[in-house]
Amino acid sequence: MTVQQEVRAAAAQAVKGTIWGVGLGPGDPELMSVRADRLLRGASHVAYFRKAGRSGQARRIVEGMLPDGVVEIAMEYPVTTEIPLTDPRYNALLSAFYSDCTTRLQALAEAGHDVLVLAEGDPFFYGSFMHLHARLRDLVPVQVVPAITGMGAAWAATDAPITWGDDVLATLMGTLPEEVLVTQMQQADALVVMKIGRNIDKIRRALRRAGRFEAAWLVEYAAMPDQTVQRLSEAEERITPYFSIIIVHGQGRRP
Amino acid sequence: MTVQQEVRAAAAQAVKGTIWGVGLGPGDPELMSVRADRLLRGASHVAYFRKAGRSGQARRIVEGMLPDGVVEIAMEYPVTTEIPLTDPRYNALLSAFYSDCTTRLQALAEAGHDVLVLAEGDPFFYGSFMHLHARLRDLVPVQVVPAITGMGAAWAATDAPITWGDDVLATLMGTLPEEVLVTQMQQADALVVMKIGRNIDKIRRALRRAGRFEAAWLVEYAAMPDQTVQRLSEAEERITPYFSIIIVHGQGRRP
Ligand SMILES: C[S@@+](CC[C@H](N)C(=O)[O-])C[C@H]1O[C@@H](n2cnc3c(N)ncnc32)[C@H](O)[C@@H]1O
Ligand SMILES: C[S@@+](CC[C@H](N)C(=O)[O-])C[C@H]1O[C@@H](n2cnc3c(N)ncnc32)[C@H](O)[C@@H]1O
Repeated sequence: MTVQQEVRAAAAQAVKGTIWGVGLGPGDPELMSVRADRLLRGASHVAYFRKAGRSGQARRIVEGMLPDGVVEIAMEYPVTTEIPLTDPRYNALLSAFYSDCTTRLQALAEAGHDVLVLAEGDPFFYGSFMHLHARLRDLVPVQVVPAITGMGAAWAATDAPITWGDDVLATLMGTLPEEVLVTQMQQADALVVMKIGRNIDKIRRALRRAGRFEAAWLVEYAAMPDQTVQRLSEAEERITPYFSIIIVHGQGRRP
Repeated sequence: MTVQQEVRAAAAQAVKGTIWGVGLGPGDPELMSVRADRLLRGASHVAYFRKAGRSGQARRIVEGMLPDGVVEIAMEYPVTTEIPLTDPRYNALLSAFYSDCTTRLQALAEAGHDVLVLAEGDPFFYGSFMHLHARLRDLVPVQVVPAITGMGAAWAATDAPITWGDDVLATLMGTLPEEVLVTQMQQADALVVMKIGRNIDKIRRALRRAGRFEAAWLVEYAAMPDQTVQRLSEAEERITPYFSIIIVHGQGRRP
């Protein structure tokens, strides 16, 4: 690069907006961070994922907080549960979708706009924003605001500590094969199981085989208006909502 | 109970204050929840743990936020690192200390005062407040405000997601025996290691034996003014500060 080119590149860089991955926490707006609250109330552009025809949980959490005239960018998932995760078309569709979102957000940042991408829970913990972060980070400035996770709200809802002393905590996805779940459930002291839904029967079997079923709690909609907390063994046997978490508390050292 | 006794008991119950376990998050006051911020700015009584002669990290986080005239209750740990965790005197001393704190807080609640007990990170995640919660919960009203954990701030500091797809995340304490660490480190995809300090050499060995050493990051003082982030393999070999976390990112499915 010539000196002039370098100066121009630096100037272009200087006026770029930032793409923010803003963790909103588990659902209750009071459990948002002070930083997220401040950013949202001063937002010019907000973007969020949602399923076609739905309002989207992230957008719902910030209802009433955004300033008048804010520009909203709804990013609608192309895939629904009809295509199994193992089908190569699933990955291809999602990948094209994330590229497309990246292009839209990059253009906004290059035009000098800051865009807040709304993320449920913590953006870096099994979140969708991560797929944009990976694509955008070498193109435009990207910042992440951490947040309270869904599991943090779930163990708070049980009104009992999740881990004591040197308890091992394993965080497991219900999408894992049953054998993997059993092994992991046997080897950790405290357990969090997420992504339950249609995997619930497999998870129940795995908890039974690992001897952890009786100690398991089911939390639905943690820190949301419809929150429920019950022993898994006393819960109705049905497919749980998307926002469900199973908790097994550690029993470690305590003076 | 006679009807009169029941009425009197109910009235006594009604005027009791609440003991709040207020999670402050990892250190940056802007990463506190809106609820914690609101409670603190309206506090009449705050209690916090500290080592004798130290100001205490929890108290430091809220510096400048508490109203004039707030009553402060410093609860000073009797034990220092001189007594090993395995010595029965350690447990006995701590247990007496927590009973004593319980008595003080119970008396305040029974006199009708709300007391905010300050907790670093999330109160139910390997926290000291848990020992008060267990003792107080059948005596007086107790409430807990969840918060961003130290590990959440640590993976944010590395600017990379901790878990993707169906990665298994294991949270491990550096106080565990080396063999346990190695097994756990081999069987999880993503790792968080806390309580490092003097256990650092053992943790380094365990990470090497599990083949995870090269991928490990060391975060000191996450979301605090002196935050540092570096590859563990490039970090100086020394005892790390109390506020240190090791992170190994998951590498799971991503479209
Ligand atoms: C794609 S992950 C997103 C996790 C999120 N980034 C977090 O930090 O919690 C979605 C899963 O998180 C869990 N989850 C997140 N928030 C929840 C809440 N408030 N209540 C219950 N489950 C929740 C559910 O198990 C759900 O299937
Ligand atoms: C007794 S545990 C308390 C955990 C806390 N309740 C939480 O939610 O993070 C103390 C350990 O947490 C970790 N830790 C907590 N906050 C931290 C921070 N801001 N930076 C680095 N490490 C932290 C350190 O490993 C420390 O040894």
